[in-house]
Amino acid sequence: MKNYLYLTIGLLLMTLAPALSQSEGDATMIREIYDETLLRGEAYENLRSLCKDVGGRVSGSPEAAAAVEWGRQLMQQYGFDSVFLQPVMVPHWVRGKKEVGRIVDAKKLGSQELNITALGNAVGTGSDGVLANVVEVHTFKELADLGEERVKGKIVFFNRPMDQTQIQTGAAYGLAGNQRRGGPSEAAKYGAVGVIVRSLSTAFDDYPHTGSTVYSFNVPKIPAVAISTNDADLLSKTLKEEPDLSFYLETHCQMLDDVLSYNVVGEIKGSTFPDEYIVVGGHLDSWDLAEGAHDDGAGVVHSIEVLRTLKAMDYQPKRTIRAVLFMNEENGLAGAKKYAELAEENGENHLAAIESDAGGFAPRGFGLDVSDAAYEQIQQWKPLFETYDLHKFNKGGSGADISALKPQGVELIGLRPDSQRYFDMHHSALDVFEIVNRRELLLGASAMTSLVYLIDQHGLAEPSPASAGTGE
Amino acid sequence: MKNYLYLTIGLLLMTLAPALSQSEGDATMIREIYDETLLRGEAYENLRSLCKDVGGRVSGSPEAAAAVEWGRQLMQQYGFDSVFLQPVMVPHWVRGKKEVGRIVDAKKLGSQELNITALGNAVGTGSDGVLANVVEVHTFKELADLGEERVKGKIVFFNRPMDQTQIQTGAAYGLAGNQRRGGPSEAAKYGAVGVIVRSLSTAFDDYPHTGSTVYSFNVPKIPAVAISTNDADLLSKTLKEEPDLSFYLETHCQMLDDVLSYNVVGEIKGSTFPDEYIVVGGHLDSWDLAEGAHDDGAGVVHSIEVLRTLKAMDYQPKRTIRAVLFMNEENGLAGAKKYAELAEENGENHLAAIESDAGGFAPRGFGLDVSDAAYEQIQQWKPLFETYDLHKFNKGGSGADISALKPQGVELIGLRPDSQRYFDMHHSALDVFEIVNRRELLLGASAMTSLVYLIDQHGLAEPSPASAGTGE
Repeated sequence: MKNYLYLTIGLLLMTLAPALSQSEGDATMIREIYDETLLRGEAYENLRSLCKDVGGRVSGSPEAAAAVEWGRQLMQQYGFDSVFLQPVMVPHWVRGKKEVGRIVDAKKLGSQELNITALGNAVGTGSDGVLANVVEVHTFKELADLGEERVKGKIVFFNRPMDQTQIQTGAAYGLAGNQRRGGPSEAAKYGAVGVIVRSLSTAFDDYPHTGSTVYSFNVPKIPAVAISTNDADLLSKTLKEEPDLSFYLETHCQMLDDVLSYNVVGEIKGSTFPDEYIVVGGHLDSWDLAEGAHDDGAGVVHSIEVLRTLKAMDYQPKRTIRAVLFMNEENGLAGAKKYAELAEENGENHLAAIESDAGGFAPRGFGLDVSDAAYEQIQQWKPLFETYDLHKFNKGGSGADISALKPQGVELIGLRPDSQRYFDMHHSALDVFEIVNRRELLLGASAMTSLVYLIDQHGLAEPSPASAGTGE
Repeated sequence: MKNYLYLTIGLLLMTLAPALSQSEGDATMIREIYDETLLRGEAYENLRSLCKDVGGRVSGSPEAAAAVEWGRQLMQQYGFDSVFLQPVMVPHWVRGKKEVGRIVDAKKLGSQELNITALGNAVGTGSDGVLANVVEVHTFKELADLGEERVKGKIVFFNRPMDQTQIQTGAAYGLAGNQRRGGPSEAAKYGAVGVIVRSLSTAFDDYPHTGSTVYSFNVPKIPAVAISTNDADLLSKTLKEEPDLSFYLETHCQMLDDVLSYNVVGEIKGSTFPDEYIVVGGHLDSWDLAEGAHDDGAGVVHSIEVLRTLKAMDYQPKRTIRAVLFMNEENGLAGAKKYAELAEENGENHLAAIESDAGGFAPRGFGLDVSDAAYEQIQQWKPLFETYDLHKFNKGGSGADISALKPQGVELIGLRPDSQRYFDMHHSALDVFEIVNRRELLLGASAMTSLVYLIDQHGLAEPSPASAGTGE
């Protein structure tokens, strides 16, 4: 018995010894990555430029074209090994003239303008607008229960709030999100003439939050807007007092013909396995109401900063590291699909893709949409990150753009910043440079760079039980 | 061997079974605490009132008196079992007329006003001001090396920045803090006529950050100001070009006679152990440049919210739970000392004290200045908090106000919110209500309430190895 015990301990120590010294080397490198980024990181100034020089950048807009050129030039100036564009046709939705949403001649309130904004992809009412009664619902079930009889000819008002008791606000967004995405077509099935959706916001204020809606086939496309949370409460209250009030809606948005645009890609060539790719990415397009600072300027400058940091440190990666600035995440994912299509066409072996599309807040960990083997491997790296306040390495939740790579078996990882403030400003006029904190932004980039470094050094375990070890 | 094994497993299961069901009950209660606070919490609106109706509230000021009355009335309105004031004499420092800090007739720059603010407790120059050369140093050692010969008659400029590579900004604050606290007296030893300290700030901007300085006995008290980080860099650069430039400093601050003020205490009486106290606290005074929103309005409304939440849930505590709003944390700790003095005088058995004085940011854990036995016990509760994104339960770092209770053997605990943004605005004009996030603030209160609940239910293990179990 004792001999077996000693043998076991001996084997254990033999296994641990190189692991420990490797781990020390990793810890030192990660400390150097954080030092480089925190002391000399340029992500914050790059974000300022993207927000202030380019501004909001809806797919197909002149600003989106400017953003492409901005990204291309910046990565070229950094001297990455190659910088190139991937052409892709993207939808071209335009908001047009400012929207009008008005309670008309209510008994107590009189006429009152409310804070609304057209949903992305939505059709407009045109100059004649829509004048109709409003019916408030909270779920598709409630809508179905009302049926055509009580919905036809009316504006449907979806007013289910985000659940404040969810600790991860992304979960609350998920729970409330079908109202905005599917609500307009759902209401159209019963003959509604327009839709007002309570903003998907954790805040109580006067800012409406836009975001894309997706029209179903075979139902009429009807105009759809988001309303600020304060005004959703006001409208709901007024409807209780006066269920037959009239609402005037006027929007001038429309979908134009598709436009040629681009993903922007920069890369540092791998020395040992140049044909293995590790991708870091964010999306270059944004909504138009503000500057797309957190969504997803942060992801764009994070991704560029990863390569800048590695280059500034004279780190020569084994694998090829790519920063991908995806086009059209917000209303179509055309860039994401194009990137995945080209990766397949070109036979590129993508080891892992890491996306930052949850804001430039203090990072708390990574969401792992990976094989069990890779999951186990990444858990071993947790102690390296805990020093930097990253504690969450859970399954699930990578990112919309990289998810197109899923069918190719790519390990998908999403940066998980603190989520508390994100939906206060997401898709609203509040998403400007000034609300991004420099240190929080840089810490996100540091975390991504550290993970890229670890994957580059150690590879990722293959998704088969036999090889669920330490990779190479 | 096998029998022993079964016995061991059996004993283990017997120990675990009640612990698990207890833990389930605790988990349910904590979920209810979070729900109550996130859905119906009033901390955010209370903070708005403290910031906007009362405003900045330096010890001894009329605003501090208003804050006392504000706290007393609010806790009385909540119907806590008792609300009372603890009289305490506090220092009364006044800033007076706006300060002037000016580079005079520099060759390139000409005359240039810089952004400065007097340090708390500092003496003023009066209307004549001080005109002198400036000598820049980074450490007390550098200052000593220069010696009287090169310091006498000059203004000493302490320009060591906060270390950006520290992940916990509080650590960086600690490392740079002696310049502000001890710098003026240290410089006076060598005959300096004034001191300029680089603001203890993680940001690069134009806002000077005040904070208290502490004059030593037996050295002259000399005027002392903080300078914004941008202007510290400008002054440093200009000094390199022109070492003999003249600087004009004018401050009108002064220390007046002590003033009668108060700690404000509210409590809910314990049902089983009414003579055992659990304290939650923050400080009611603040600096005058802004509204003291994060520092420490957050701690004040956190503490009140703990009691409000428990009362709203009809929770009948076993122990007496006290919210203590301490007076004069910023420049004297007179309230903290008074509270500890009275606790001792009245023979009050304080089980634990939990302080919130690190801002209203998303909570990440608690700093534990507790016995080993209590430390082990609190570690058992970690899984209950991880669901809510609190991962850090480390030794050290409770809080300045409760530390006065240390000699009485009280277990001291500090709420640890995310630290990244705190020193961007700490003690500066930026610390206003608008920069506090509602959800982050409420999550801090929820975490404190949950910990209070656990300590109330289970007690805390006594600080002796024998009893390092689960308390009662």
